[in-house]
Formats: sequence, structure tokens, C-alpha cells
Amino acid sequence: MEEKISKAVIRRLPRYYRYLGDLLNNNVERISSNELSAKMKLTASQIRQDLNNFGGFGQQGYGYNVKYLHDEIGKILGLDHKHNMIIIGAGNLASAIVRYDKFETLGFPTIALFDNNINIVGKTINGIKVHSMDDLDKFVNENKVDIAALTLPKEHAIEVATRLVNLGIKSIWNFSHIDLELNDPDVVVENVHLSDSLMQLSYEIVSKNKQ
Amino acid sequence: MEEKISKAVIRRLPRYYRYLGDLLNNNVERISSNELSAKMKLTASQIRQDLNNFGGFGQQGYGYNVKYLHDEIGKILGLDHKHNMIIIGAGNLASAIVRYDKFETLGFPTIALFDNNINIVGKTINGIKVHSMDDLDKFVNENKVDIAALTLPKEHAIEVATRLVNLGIKSIWNFSHIDLELNDPDVVVENVHLSDSLMQLSYEIVSKNKQ
Repeated sequence: MEEKISKAVIRRLPRYYRYLGDLLNNNVERISSNELSAKMKLTASQIRQDLNNFGGFGQQGYGYNVKYLHDEIGKILGLDHKHNMIIIGAGNLASAIVRYDKFETLGFPTIALFDNNINIVGKTINGIKVHSMDDLDKFVNENKVDIAALTLPKEHAIEVATRLVNLGIKSIWNFSHIDLELNDPDVVVENVHLSDSLMQLSYEIVSKNKQ
Repeated sequence: MEEKISKAVIRRLPRYYRYLGDLLNNNVERISSNELSAKMKLTASQIRQDLNNFGGFGQQGYGYNVKYLHDEIGKILGLDHKHNMIIIGAGNLASAIVRYDKFETLGFPTIALFDNNINIVGKTINGIKVHSMDDLDKFVNENKVDIAALTLPKEHAIEVATRLVNLGIKSIWNFSHIDLELNDPDVVVENVHLSDSLMQLSYEIVSKNKQ
């Protein structure tokens, strides 16, 4: 795959994966492109275009084999590998992430939490230990850590992210309320802004009221 | 505004709003389209196109007036109105939302939490009371509720969403792990899937490793 796949396509892939997973759970073996289209609220041609970025997968007159397509999209998304995750900042959001089994099922187990607050260091959340930030370097050196999630105040985000990158961590899932830009081509960052989705909702409310 | 604005543009609006807010906080009064372009990592022409959907705002040879553009985008996003929010499901994610001041600053105060768990009903989180689900109808009838955030298990999401819509609530910010589709043209739903962003991150990791 040499060509650059557009962000919009990549953004839709997890949705395909979720929908196909639902079909699998309901023992659906195959689906026509029209049925998939109706379910996903995308045109059949859009779906074809999306999947053609990765070589197709459909078959004229048959549609899609649900398990095959699900597994192939899973591979494209890297879900055939396990990605160990640590979370920096053991507050409410971290607790919500650790308690949500789905992340582990998808292959993203949280293996440790880190915090500065001595009142929670040493405790466990859903069986996962909260370590002191002082132990971060040692832990990362001794364990395979693929992803660091940042759920700490934005004032500390850049400093901590830089420390993590210096420790060799290549992927950051950032919930701190800034767009992290590390300018390191080897590092991937996914910024999550919950307020953005709230503002989109509010946009829809306003648009609706104007109609 | 009669034409339908594309989802991609709407998705970028909160980012414009955040970036312009940062500039305002740094006392920047005006910005050229090239500077804004570099900061946002969008081409100047893309920014012009985006903003032209709403009538422009730039001025040849001057660029953009930061405060004016910030406020106008805020209005487009409906941030000149207050939107009272209730949260159904008073778990960790609800706590994280209630404790994040920014939502209130943006005009989305949480005015009540609801839960079925008798161990937490009656308590407060960050000063906001947790009510019993039995009191939902009464509360909604007696208070102005604009948005309901759902942070409850997906098994209950559709039932609770339907109840909320029957109570007259028109906007749902859904964190339950399903795509809520209420098929009611008067109701807007914003589905947040944290696992989607994790899968996008994982896609980026895999793509990087293939290079």
C-alpha cells in the first residue's frame, strides 16, 4: 500500500469494523453491498470506493463475506496485534478507560497507570496498579509499552509526552485538552477532544432550529 | 444558510474555535490566512473555502480579525446560547465530564446526573446532585434540559434515549457503545466512540511500521 489513504476513509474504517462485528455476532455470514450500504448510511459506491483503497474484498453477485471483511479490516487497523497501553493521569477518565473491557478485547490492554498523587499511587483500578511518575522510566524500560494515553491536565501534557517519546514510546492517545504536536515523524498522536463533539452537537441543534 | 454544509467542514469548526481562542488568550488581534494556515495545518485555500460556507470573514490584505472570527464561529456553533445538560449514568465517565470546567465555560453546564444505583443516588459529584432514574420525568418537566449525555451501558441506551425523546429532549450526546439511531428528524444525536480513535491510532502505527 504505497498511496496515502485519506483521513476520511481511515475515520470510517473503525465504523465498518464495528458494524461487521455486530453482523458477526448475529451470525450473518454474508451481506450485499446494498444491505451494508443501508445499514451504514453510506452509498454502495462510497463503500466500494473505501474498500478499493485496500484492494476490494467484494464479489460481484455475492456481496461481502462478513467474517472475511471484518478480519481484513481488523488487520488494516492493526487489530491482529496486541498493543500494550499505559495511562498517565489516574483520574476519572483513566478509570473509565480501564473499566471498559472493550479496549482489552480489541487488543489494547492497559498494563499500568501512572500518577503524581501520593494518595492514589499504589492503589489499583480494576486490578491495574497505579505507579508513581518516578517509576515511569524504569517501567517503560522493563515492559513492552506500545501506547501511552494522556489523561492529565494540559499544563503537563507536552512535558510528559516529550518524556515518553524520549523513552521510546511511539504512539500517544491524547485526552489532555490541547492538540499535541510533537514534530517527530516517528511518533503518532491521536488527539481526542470531547468538547469538539459537544460543539458539533450544538451546531446541529442551532441548524435544526433555523430550518 | 440554505445549503447543507458538509460534515467535514462542521468537524473542523470546533478546531477553528479552539485555535482562535488560543490566539485570543495570547492577545493576538489579527492573523493572516497564511499564519492561520500554518497553525492549523490546513491550506489557506481550504480555510477560505471552509469559511466561505458561512459568508467569508476574511479581508484581502488584512487577514482575519481574531476576536470577530472567534465570535462568529462561536455563533455558528451555537455557543452564544447556554445548553443545559443532564447526564444519565453517574459513573467514571460522567464524573470526568462533570469535573471538566471547560464544558460549562463553553455554555454546557451539567445541571443533574441520574443513575439507578441506590448507593450513589443522593450524592453529589463536583457539586452536582445524582438523582434517581425514577425522578427523571419530573426533573425534565420542571427544568430546561437541552442535552442529555448518555454514559450508561449500551443495553439500556435505546430504551433510555426513547424515554428522553418522549420527554421532549431533542439532543443526545451518546457515549454508550452503540450508534444510536432514533429515526426522529427532530432529534440530533452525536455518537462518541472512544474505541474508534484508538483504532485510528493503531492504523497509524501499522502504516508507519510498513514504511
